[in-house]
Amino acid sequence: MLIFVTGGARSGKSSYAERLAAQSGQAVTYLATAVAFDNEMKDRIRRHQSERPADWLTVEEPVDVAQAARQVQAPVLLLDCLSVWVNNLMFHDFSDGQILDAAAELVSVAGNRAGTTICVTNEVGFGIVPDNALSRRYRDVLGWVNQRVAGASDEAYLLVSGLPLKLK
Amino acid sequence: MLIFVTGGARSGKSSYAERLAAQSGQAVTYLATAVAFDNEMKDRIRRHQSERPADWLTVEEPVDVAQAARQVQAPVLLLDCLSVWVNNLMFHDFSDGQILDAAAELVSVAGNRAGTTICVTNEVGFGIVPDNALSRRYRDVLGWVNQRVAGASDEAYLLVSGLPLKLK
Amino acid sequence: MLIFVTGGARSGKSSYAERLAAQSGQAVTYLATAVAFDNEMKDRIRRHQSERPADWLTVEEPVDVAQAARQVQAPVLLLDCLSVWVNNLMFHDFSDGQILDAAAELVSVAGNRAGTTICVTNEVGFGIVPDNALSRRYRDVLGWVNQRVAGASDEAYLLVSGLPLKLK
Repeated sequence: MLIFVTGGARSGKSSYAERLAAQSGQAVTYLATAVAFDNEMKDRIRRHQSERPADWLTVEEPVDVAQAARQVQAPVLLLDCLSVWVNNLMFHDFSDGQILDAAAELVSVAGNRAGTTICVTNEVGFGIVPDNALSRRYRDVLGWVNQRVAGASDEAYLLVSGLPLKLK
Repeated sequence: MLIFVTGGARSGKSSYAERLAAQSGQAVTYLATAVAFDNEMKDRIRRHQSERPADWLTVEEPVDVAQAARQVQAPVLLLDCLSVWVNNLMFHDFSDGQILDAAAELVSVAGNRAGTTICVTNEVGFGIVPDNALSRRYRDVLGWVNQRVAGASDEAYLLVSGLPLKLK
Repeated sequence: MLIFVTGGARSGKSSYAERLAAQSGQAVTYLATAVAFDNEMKDRIRRHQSERPADWLTVEEPVDVAQAARQVQAPVLLLDCLSVWVNNLMFHDFSDGQILDAAAELVSVAGNRAGTTICVTNEVGFGIVPDNALSRRYRDVLGWVNQRVAGASDEAYLLVSGLPLKLK
């Protein structure tokens, strides 16, 4: 069971995904892809952490997310988020093809897990074309990754102002 | 009765909110949060005004919107828009906490009114992460305010290319 | 029959429109508004072309799209996309009013065609206000054009992560 949760910044997508995980009543492993590299980022991560149930296991993996997912024992795996993960892969010089292969591997791991996998991501393509090539590449690649994961999902939601729109 | 109307720039959100207000058949007070500080802004405001029914009362209040809302006598209050209001509060050095408190106060005033309150706002979080801290803070705070107001609303709509998607 | 397909960058909107066209089982003319002016653009156009059925007729028209549409004989006309077209018109110094007139003319041609017209476009207004006036004008004008075409359409879809949300 794969659930895809997308939305803009501050759309409530992480909270919604966490609510889905909590409502399952099962053990949850939280797989964080964000690594704090400055104070603004540390603040964002700390705020997110303080809002999650204390009994959730947190695993941090910025790059090899499929491998980390493979090792999760808990029935519910909450991966937050694909958008930071794709950013990390670009930072580590993965090509577009390698990133799409990594996304396909993640989808395959999710399909082979017995439990539920919830993937959180961002919509970043609804603005004006960015004026730098790196941002344009990022929104292209993230868009393709999102399509891949959403296409394989059993349920998909778009969050807008904290409210979910069912995509699938 | 609280109605939340959101959308991107030129998505038809103001027109849709105005149609909802007009269709009520009741007296409408239009609460404008925008203050013209340059010619581009003056043009935008003038264009919006000319499209509204002549018998609507217009009140302008850039900052203390809850207080202005409290004084409205008309059965229908149309507030346009939360996004400019949040921008005004940031310009006046309100902290994030003060802005969220102000949003909570506005929600409370809307809940205590006998009539209908329609709040228009913007989605600004569906693009690439902005490269300046002020814009990042703005989309964070506006996102939280939108979630607060949308969460308290009885009806919520996302406008896309002039067409409404019902969120709630 | 007019079908409107919108979405962000890499949202799968072109693929979805192409699927709609292919599923009709009828002859398709593809009307491309993009003109390659640099290598990045050439790559994007080539990638798009290689994904389309080989028996589709391709017509390229960056400016006088209504006239090009009038001459299409095939039952299905797939126009991709309004967003590049509006950009082209601005580049050729069309005023806002002239662009809106051109959009009205296109809608009229679509209404007079016997077959199906599918128009693809972009949502560009869901981010932070752009810091340059040209981008702000572009998202205003494109927003108005999208509203015009969507308003006249028989069906409308918003694509998110490759998944369609029915707007109409």
